[in-house]
Amino acid sequence: MSPARPIARRMAHIQPFHVMDLLARARRLEAQGRDIVHLEIGEPDFQTPAPIVEAGIRALRAGHTHYTPATGLPALREAIARYYQDVLGADVAPERIVITPGASGALLLVMGILLNPGDQVVMTDPGYPCNRHFVRTFEGEAVSVPVGPETDYQLTAAHLARHWSERTVAAMVATPSNPTGTLADRALLSELLDFTQGRGGALIVDEIYQGLVYEGENGTAAALSEDLFVINSFSKFFGMTGWRLGWVVAPRDCVRELDKLAQNLFLAASTPAQHAALAAFTPACMEILEARREAFRARRDFLLPALRELGLKVPVTPRGAFYLYGDSTAFSEDSFALAERCLEVAGVAITPGLDFGDHLARSHVRFAYTRDLPVLEQAVARLRTFLR
Amino acid sequence: MSPARPIARRMAHIQPFHVMDLLARARRLEAQGRDIVHLEIGEPDFQTPAPIVEAGIRALRAGHTHYTPATGLPALREAIARYYQDVLGADVAPERIVITPGASGALLLVMGILLNPGDQVVMTDPGYPCNRHFVRTFEGEAVSVPVGPETDYQLTAAHLARHWSERTVAAMVATPSNPTGTLADRALLSELLDFTQGRGGALIVDEIYQGLVYEGENGTAAALSEDLFVINSFSKFFGMTGWRLGWVVAPRDCVRELDKLAQNLFLAASTPAQHAALAAFTPACMEILEARREAFRARRDFLLPALRELGLKVPVTPRGAFYLYGDSTAFSEDSFALAERCLEVAGVAITPGLDFGDHLARSHVRFAYTRDLPVLEQAVARLRTFLR
Repeated sequence: MSPARPIARRMAHIQPFHVMDLLARARRLEAQGRDIVHLEIGEPDFQTPAPIVEAGIRALRAGHTHYTPATGLPALREAIARYYQDVLGADVAPERIVITPGASGALLLVMGILLNPGDQVVMTDPGYPCNRHFVRTFEGEAVSVPVGPETDYQLTAAHLARHWSERTVAAMVATPSNPTGTLADRALLSELLDFTQGRGGALIVDEIYQGLVYEGENGTAAALSEDLFVINSFSKFFGMTGWRLGWVVAPRDCVRELDKLAQNLFLAASTPAQHAALAAFTPACMEILEARREAFRARRDFLLPALRELGLKVPVTPRGAFYLYGDSTAFSEDSFALAERCLEVAGVAITPGLDFGDHLARSHVRFAYTRDLPVLEQAVARLRTFLR
Repeated sequence: MSPARPIARRMAHIQPFHVMDLLARARRLEAQGRDIVHLEIGEPDFQTPAPIVEAGIRALRAGHTHYTPATGLPALREAIARYYQDVLGADVAPERIVITPGASGALLLVMGILLNPGDQVVMTDPGYPCNRHFVRTFEGEAVSVPVGPETDYQLTAAHLARHWSERTVAAMVATPSNPTGTLADRALLSELLDFTQGRGGALIVDEIYQGLVYEGENGTAAALSEDLFVINSFSKFFGMTGWRLGWVVAPRDCVRELDKLAQNLFLAASTPAQHAALAAFTPACMEILEARREAFRARRDFLLPALRELGLKVPVTPRGAFYLYGDSTAFSEDSFALAERCLEVAGVAITPGLDFGDHLARSHVRFAYTRDLPVLEQAVARLRTFLR
């Protein structure tokens, strides 16, 4: 064997999901016969809704297995545009919608067309861990702004004013957010948009949990202006995680650039998935999805008070997504060690704060209420014993 | 509207597929009632083989719609490893196989872990156009080496010696190649591997047309050494273009880095596609694929002499893939204009050399024999009239 080859410098800054190590350990415990409650992964227990699965099967039977255009199936771009119009009250032309391999693909394209080496993107800490890695991938610099309960863990224009530099080209927010489940309302989004437009920068709004909102606005930043990027996905609300399908709503003058980059980096998103997703907006499917939203709400309404009662501090009631993010210092000064013991001793897998940044990394953990109520009840019973 | 935002500099160097403009024009002609023979796109007319489609449908019915690990379904990695062992005579551990969203995803990951800004990658001109754009995406520099019939349009160690610099970190070859359909045999690959190892660089071998070989070795560079990257795909030989599924065989010490980058950029490849692909290696499916290979061979054996007779110069008989690449200067000094007229006047869509680099861009065109024999016969009849 030759000596280990040099690896690109960016890879020293791109971290794996730490929860994957916990997941692997959970799998080993399960192989030994232990029962583990999985509240660590951001993937619901629900199957893809039957109307979508059936549409996927029909597409396969009909031979829809060839490439689509890089920007996606025209019929799907139109269906998403109608969804924005009818459900979210936003006027979005189909031409501004680019279909991507998951929201991951959308983030890759948007960062790819915006970032020169050294350019900065302002984002929250805690936040979705891949965001800063997408920026690093293109030789940019993520500027992670510590946020807390005083702003619902969201960026404000005051944050941007403090952290915007000559090199900043974009700000990124998520609503509902991961890991905190908080929302950025219309007023806040307007304020952020005014700021970024004033500085000639871009606003990127991650709405991949859009639809999973239990109180407050289930809207879209796309209603505010054409001059921002909205990222969305069929994974979470629509229950299509493994199909890998998402989209971006882009400013008109950026679509050609996104198309070019998509042609080169992906060719196109999955064709069967695109055909299946056409069924996502049918009344039969929307009815299933609404019922699931109510199930998530019931889970939140059970788990949140139960964990608070055990001593987890959750200062802001999460209003969307399927996450509870709380201060665990009542149990341990080190949330990673806590997550490990929680798995080993209580058989409950949760995600350490480390996966969402540095700011609250050692004092916080995330619970994903992606399991059914009886399972959550069992988890709470185990935690009660473990944390006593 | 705000003024057009600044777009990253890389986008000025990342070109769209020029053939897409021709394709759009072809669609307009078809909408007017014209009959167009499509020999421009690298996608065969064959449907995905029935055993793969049926496996996909079974996977959907079984609810296989959740995420897989970022490196792919363990059973699929094992099935691919057995294919290398049994069919290609190469000993490849499943742990070295990383499943990706198409070969595009594989190229993205490999370039992402290898390239620092300014690093160079040596490749052929003509070649697959996205290769240089992947390099540019990561702020590297593609060094395009003009190649011709004297080396079967392949890189040699002599080319590498001439073009390797202090900044070069990798060389890239394709066998069978696009657009020329030529092969790099075992001796040549060994020579290239010796060279790159001697310089501490990486060898990347694109084998996405592997399996579609009509004469000579249908082997794999993975049989030579563990110390190279082999890119492959379910798109071409296995007939799964729109499913977006590929893989990379990597040196052992690079798998962790590829995994990390895949977690962040993709999460994982499509789950239904991965389950469907398990059926690709069954005897029933391999029988279909062998029959298709013979059909491609028959198409080549018809189209190549027919085009040569018309005056297209094809100095090297292509031995794989489904492309004929030839010198069209007998008809026009400008192959792009020729392709346009060929579409408008003869109703035959072909790809101008411009899509494969600069070197032979204006003097060459590519024909993709992705249509059935009667269609090819019609194309030749039309071309005979047009070129007379």
